[in-house]
Amino acid sequence: MKRKTDVLIVGGSAAGVTTAITVRRHYPDAEITLARKENQVLIPCGIPYIFGTVGSPENNLIPDAVLSKNNIDLITDEVTSIDRKGKAVTTASGDAISYKKMVLATGSVPFVPPIPDTRLNNVFTVKKEVDYLKHMSQALDKAKDLVIIGGGFIGVEFADECRKRQNLNVSVIELLPHCLLLACDEDICSKAEDKLKENGVNILADTRAEAIVGNGKVEHVQLAGGEKLRADAVIMGIGVVPNSDLAQSADLKVDERHSIYVDEFMRTSDENIFAAGDCARKTSFFTGGPSRLMLASIASIESRVAGANLFTLRRRNERSIGVFSTVIDDLCIGSAGMTERMARETGFDVVTGEASSPNRHPVGMPGVTDVSVKLIFSKESGIMIGGQICGGPSVGEAINIIGATIQKRMRADDIATLQVGTHPALTASPIAYQITNAAEIALTKMR
Amino acid sequence: MKRKTDVLIVGGSAAGVTTAITVRRHYPDAEITLARKENQVLIPCGIPYIFGTVGSPENNLIPDAVLSKNNIDLITDEVTSIDRKGKAVTTASGDAISYKKMVLATGSVPFVPPIPDTRLNNVFTVKKEVDYLKHMSQALDKAKDLVIIGGGFIGVEFADECRKRQNLNVSVIELLPHCLLLACDEDICSKAEDKLKENGVNILADTRAEAIVGNGKVEHVQLAGGEKLRADAVIMGIGVVPNSDLAQSADLKVDERHSIYVDEFMRTSDENIFAAGDCARKTSFFTGGPSRLMLASIASIESRVAGANLFTLRRRNERSIGVFSTVIDDLCIGSAGMTERMARETGFDVVTGEASSPNRHPVGMPGVTDVSVKLIFSKESGIMIGGQICGGPSVGEAINIIGATIQKRMRADDIATLQVGTHPALTASPIAYQITNAAEIALTKMR
Repeated sequence: MKRKTDVLIVGGSAAGVTTAITVRRHYPDAEITLARKENQVLIPCGIPYIFGTVGSPENNLIPDAVLSKNNIDLITDEVTSIDRKGKAVTTASGDAISYKKMVLATGSVPFVPPIPDTRLNNVFTVKKEVDYLKHMSQALDKAKDLVIIGGGFIGVEFADECRKRQNLNVSVIELLPHCLLLACDEDICSKAEDKLKENGVNILADTRAEAIVGNGKVEHVQLAGGEKLRADAVIMGIGVVPNSDLAQSADLKVDERHSIYVDEFMRTSDENIFAAGDCARKTSFFTGGPSRLMLASIASIESRVAGANLFTLRRRNERSIGVFSTVIDDLCIGSAGMTERMARETGFDVVTGEASSPNRHPVGMPGVTDVSVKLIFSKESGIMIGGQICGGPSVGEAINIIGATIQKRMRADDIATLQVGTHPALTASPIAYQITNAAEIALTKMR
Repeated sequence: MKRKTDVLIVGGSAAGVTTAITVRRHYPDAEITLARKENQVLIPCGIPYIFGTVGSPENNLIPDAVLSKNNIDLITDEVTSIDRKGKAVTTASGDAISYKKMVLATGSVPFVPPIPDTRLNNVFTVKKEVDYLKHMSQALDKAKDLVIIGGGFIGVEFADECRKRQNLNVSVIELLPHCLLLACDEDICSKAEDKLKENGVNILADTRAEAIVGNGKVEHVQLAGGEKLRADAVIMGIGVVPNSDLAQSADLKVDERHSIYVDEFMRTSDENIFAAGDCARKTSFFTGGPSRLMLASIASIESRVAGANLFTLRRRNERSIGVFSTVIDDLCIGSAGMTERMARETGFDVVTGEASSPNRHPVGMPGVTDVSVKLIFSKESGIMIGGQICGGPSVGEAINIIGATIQKRMRADDIATLQVGTHPALTASPIAYQITNAAEIALTKMR
């Protein structure tokens, strides 16, 4: 079958859906088609919660209603090749779709480490596929010893959810000295590790998995020191790589990491083809160099840029800051921008400020917990380049205050006098408000 | 007794304490003295919670440890006069204290409406005095019918806390068409009113209290239409007026509302005397004209400006935005900057954007509730001039994202592409994130 559309979006996850909505808002009359290969699309960040809190992949789907509500034509089919000259694609089922503008939102695939033998039964990656995750959940039901390779966000979230299953002993193997060390400084990493340990998770940091060993099915993970860790299930959560096969087969420019090259308007090397999300090249807000950040939230922002720019250039991608949050048991953690460690390694001279206080005032108010904030400033300019928070659930929004102030390149002095609102039942007192106080403390060190 | 100090701070509430800490941070060697007349200082925003959640004034105190920790000398005595030429004050107990720099943080006192007969027994204002509030709480224990005059934040918070007392029928009288109308637009005001009504509070909006009537003790409140509302206790919560008596007696310049004149460095008309908090003149961030906002959070920011500037001018007061939050039962409300109504009345041509979505993703995550955001932009410039949120407890921090973006004069386009972080257990999905979406929706109306 031959089809025609004004805008073809390839991929139906965070980037694809946000692009579709954004195009609809900016070009209300455009005919918009979204092609994806999956029948059902998982909420990517929600995948660990399938294994505990929400219970099944079907409870973690992006509803298709968001597409129909925005008058987006949905095609469930895989785009297999692009004819850039003819401005058309062909699909696995043999259809042809011609487009005026196309957006590649093909996402990423799990990185599989080059160790033996990752193909044993019960060795899993974190694939964004409903049936795969169902199978994985069934396997975990029968398992006793789960080893998670990789202690980043996905690894610790899997650990925290899986330890809620009665049947499982959970271990996490992390190559770096601490879990979460690419996103947080050591003190917060330690708090997260302590929380996992309290709940029975075995943390092996500074540890390399050398091999996965078994006979048909995994039996143990062999560590660098020779030690064997019993395992009847393994989850590898050590990152993802851009899925740029389609782009590469169409001779679109990619970088050395196979990310699709995009300019600041999110245009690929073909001006009629845009890319957004995990498949697209990212640049660090702080260094201008390449960034390895791949987050659904970044995908959404890039999609708001790409979608607005399709027929008229309206927005620039301001480069990626990286704003994360997560929860381990009742400990909520947020991080934005560079960690102190990362900033120093990059060559910045930094000053930090830390403030900790209860998130309610007076402390007799319900829901009280301590919230700690650490802010990282370039000493030279006073500009904030990073921040971390840990505490209660409001951390999820509080980290976005820090993200916004980083994005606007605010200085310690601006942040110390930021006009914030406070309330006894919702925040720290204005005297003890953590973000302004941390900035004030950093300032005193700059003199 | 004669004393000497480098810095004398008069007043021990939000402004006084924040000033003291700020001076200590910026001038580590200064001798700092804080003089206040109260033995114990109440957390001002926590006062309504004394009557329900926290149970007593003693559970709602600013701890003196914050002063001793920062090496601030505390004098419990009332400053009764200022000798500006001699740079000294005298106190009620007859002491004299000489200063190099002084900060007036004398706060505000409740406004008493000019109606008969506010001096009857069991007619209360919201005084920041421990013994007064204890007496008030005892009176409420014995009362049956409580009438609250004034449906602003303080009024609705008192209503929500007092309705938790088994013995009380609570009514709120509000002059404007809705409660909270000076801080929120009608739709949010209605939600707040509905929540109070659901919990048995009687709301009389668009209603004027003409007189308080009784024989020694209050018996009823007479309304403008002639109706009588039975009352054996009345709380008047219709705002506060600056407490500038001391400043006026020292011939410091005040404005027509008796606010102490301060320049943008928080200096009064005497360059050795600063003022901060409710007693100091405020200017609107949006109009440059006078502002009636009096909030502990504003007091704290002004104190961070004043405290830093005492011996060297380091900061400017950027004028008051007004960032509020409150909770009524389980409904959390935040507002920053101008409401749509206020903006139109001021003469702005405005465009609004609204977005509502669950605060978790997927919706099976615990703690899910809808969060609604309304953003208000100047149509001409695209600059955001206000925002309101209602939803769950994270509203307390989310409104500070909006406050920060207002303070940095961000445009709808900047906010639509703000780099936010999201997490299944803490926020909306990146696709549905309310603040960015509301900005995007407003943008589509600007074309």
